[in-house]
Amino acid sequence: MSTQTSAQSPPVRPGTASDPRRVEMFSDGVFAIAATLLVLDIEVPDARDGASLWSALAGLWPSYAAHVVTFLVIGIIWANHHTVFGYIARVDRLLICLNLLLLLVVSALPWPTALVAEHLGGGGADAHAAAAVFSGFMMAQAVVFMLFWLYVTRTGHLFHAHVDNAHARAMRLKFGLGLAVYPLAVALAFVSAPATLALHGLLAVYYAANPIWIPSIDEA
Amino acid sequence: MSTQTSAQSPPVRPGTASDPRRVEMFSDGVFAIAATLLVLDIEVPDARDGASLWSALAGLWPSYAAHVVTFLVIGIIWANHHTVFGYIARVDRLLICLNLLLLLVVSALPWPTALVAEHLGGGGADAHAAAAVFSGFMMAQAVVFMLFWLYVTRTGHLFHAHVDNAHARAMRLKFGLGLAVYPLAVALAFVSAPATLALHGLLAVYYAANPIWIPSIDEA
Amino acid sequence: MSTQTSAQSPPVRPGTASDPRRVEMFSDGVFAIAATLLVLDIEVPDARDGASLWSALAGLWPSYAAHVVTFLVIGIIWANHHTVFGYIARVDRLLICLNLLLLLVVSALPWPTALVAEHLGGGGADAHAAAAVFSGFMMAQAVVFMLFWLYVTRTGHLFHAHVDNAHARAMRLKFGLGLAVYPLAVALAFVSAPATLALHGLLAVYYAANPIWIPSIDEA
Amino acid sequence: MSTQTSAQSPPVRPGTASDPRRVEMFSDGVFAIAATLLVLDIEVPDARDGASLWSALAGLWPSYAAHVVTFLVIGIIWANHHTVFGYIARVDRLLICLNLLLLLVVSALPWPTALVAEHLGGGGADAHAAAAVFSGFMMAQAVVFMLFWLYVTRTGHLFHAHVDNAHARAMRLKFGLGLAVYPLAVALAFVSAPATLALHGLLAVYYAANPIWIPSIDEA
Repeated sequence: MSTQTSAQSPPVRPGTASDPRRVEMFSDGVFAIAATLLVLDIEVPDARDGASLWSALAGLWPSYAAHVVTFLVIGIIWANHHTVFGYIARVDRLLICLNLLLLLVVSALPWPTALVAEHLGGGGADAHAAAAVFSGFMMAQAVVFMLFWLYVTRTGHLFHAHVDNAHARAMRLKFGLGLAVYPLAVALAFVSAPATLALHGLLAVYYAANPIWIPSIDEA
Repeated sequence: MSTQTSAQSPPVRPGTASDPRRVEMFSDGVFAIAATLLVLDIEVPDARDGASLWSALAGLWPSYAAHVVTFLVIGIIWANHHTVFGYIARVDRLLICLNLLLLLVVSALPWPTALVAEHLGGGGADAHAAAAVFSGFMMAQAVVFMLFWLYVTRTGHLFHAHVDNAHARAMRLKFGLGLAVYPLAVALAFVSAPATLALHGLLAVYYAANPIWIPSIDEA
Repeated sequence: MSTQTSAQSPPVRPGTASDPRRVEMFSDGVFAIAATLLVLDIEVPDARDGASLWSALAGLWPSYAAHVVTFLVIGIIWANHHTVFGYIARVDRLLICLNLLLLLVVSALPWPTALVAEHLGGGGADAHAAAAVFSGFMMAQAVVFMLFWLYVTRTGHLFHAHVDNAHARAMRLKFGLGLAVYPLAVALAFVSAPATLALHGLLAVYYAANPIWIPSIDEA
Repeated sequence: MSTQTSAQSPPVRPGTASDPRRVEMFSDGVFAIAATLLVLDIEVPDARDGASLWSALAGLWPSYAAHVVTFLVIGIIWANHHTVFGYIARVDRLLICLNLLLLLVVSALPWPTALVAEHLGGGGADAHAAAAVFSGFMMAQAVVFMLFWLYVTRTGHLFHAHVDNAHARAMRLKFGLGLAVYPLAVALAFVSAPATLALHGLLAVYYAANPIWIPSIDEA
């Protein structure tokens, strides 16, 4: 375990391929763009059909709700990603691949969000289908983040020397428990689409209040 | 107050979760994308209906006006955000959450901008509604930025040691006065939509000329 | 002139508001996004009207040409911006405002590009109008970049100590001569829209081959 | 060959035009945006025509397949670009131009992806044409990356001192062999469009498993 080595021992040359800085930059780009592209999914009503613009805007509530929930989810994933990379001293090829897989899911989130925005208001089978697809994507990002976390905590070989890998491994259970909620969210989609969206909003708030955190060896 | 501590005392490890660098990178991404996505809201007229392209282009003036105003607003928020982060030595979870809230509002700005671009030219109740929504978003970003500023100046615990928190707190009043204009802008929307847009342009110019600035302790 | 001062004298605290790093990051974001959003302007033909996809693709040549020219232009502006910021040790409020003005023009470039892509193939008055608007945007970015360059070379107060401001000022004439071509490009738009696009492509190649460059004092 | 010089000898001033950092930042922006814009190509079915949303979603399989393949391709190009820049100590004008050419191709990838997504399901001549265009773009990016790699390994003058340029040149052959597959992929497009897409997916996995890697002189 690298947690025994001193802070100076892993000689990562700054700017080389094992420097985590550029992986963070690319990831931050994808997180920021995915979060900002969400706005394109909100329809701009032209309201030329006699109804007032206010009523047209009111009818777009599923778009607003889906937008806020997905923005929060992306924000929380980003914050956790940011925290984990704060513990990482170097990256290897497998970490880069797991990170790309995570970014693949995150960058796709505007699509299920648009699907929910389009179908939530209509209700019926299509609203349930859209909510189920949305829940599936949320579960996918949680599973991929878990894989990412399992990999970096397996031996802690990529961590800074001051990171306590024993504590990092202990956080696995906490994360694993969170995963159990997602199949329920998929099931809930077939009962109530709005409740499903609300559940994902609550999950985001829960994760915001319960961040990943690992004590340093010198703090523990 | 951390302003009493020496510059060396808070040992923020570069690259760790409390390092403000990556929060800046993510925020800059969102600011830059939101500012650039505005261009997608400007219609590309196909002008196949007999009228010349010039007259079609002239009819798009609300798009140009809304685009320039919102771009300036985003630019000013970015510049102030940039200034504040220049004073910040470390971030904590609550700052990250307030920052995400700010980014949620900023990233949504292309939508009210498109709304104004679509309805300003038509005049009538829809133009007023669009301008009121636009003013509401502008007020939301000002309020969230104020919350952000109140938090970082409450104790100054996140500032660099050379920042004079007493001066930083004094800037609160100046900011608070600015906030009083926004309800007026919402009210003005129901009188004249173009005047509302012009007011927001003037506010942007005002904030550009009156930036946030805190003297260093060694300068004061 | 700051060119007389030693490299150590301007004590810019890294990460503070006068540190150029974050202005570069925000600008790079806008440049990168504007260049990449161009792709959204290229139509994806659905070709359900009997004609083959190949002929539909061939008919999109104005889109391809406009895309390549604008991408090159943005690339060259970025490269020159990158070079200039390589000489800059600190930023002030006016530089940030001029930079925002430059980004406002650059971020809008996908729109005139889409205009040309839409109307170049049709020929006639609309093609001329679209090419004239395109030329106008190109002139606007050149003029704003010139203003930016005039400001940073006026006294050289923002330069690194090793930058020879006398040489930097000498480059103004070279830039000014380039500006004379843009009114011709606007005029040419009313003669031949494709030739106008080709001229802007040639200008981009010319600027790529004749970059901004300032010798260091120790090299001169 | 610069591989003989010591690590201290090339005095690249950080932040100057020859500092590779900002070229990486701009490139990362383009990679991240191109990868994330792919999501806009996936249609959001409105399914108001009687069929269920599930069957409409199932009919979009070519969009999903094209999205995943192109995302992986962009991810692999980014990872290789990241690795190569890890060996580069400074950039010159020609490298910046080759890099812009690479970014031009990468930033255009959402368009052939949308083309495949639109026409793959329909089969027939249009599906073949779309797959051929897609293969052409993939070949273009591979050729431009090869040009980039040939340039940086020609003399190794841009490498860090610890990079073994003899090994770097030896990787050219490996890359050149890979290029031979692309004309086959173009030809395959006229036989089977789905098989062509699958081939590009396999190529991405192959490159993910066989990254660019150069031993350091002190490791060799």
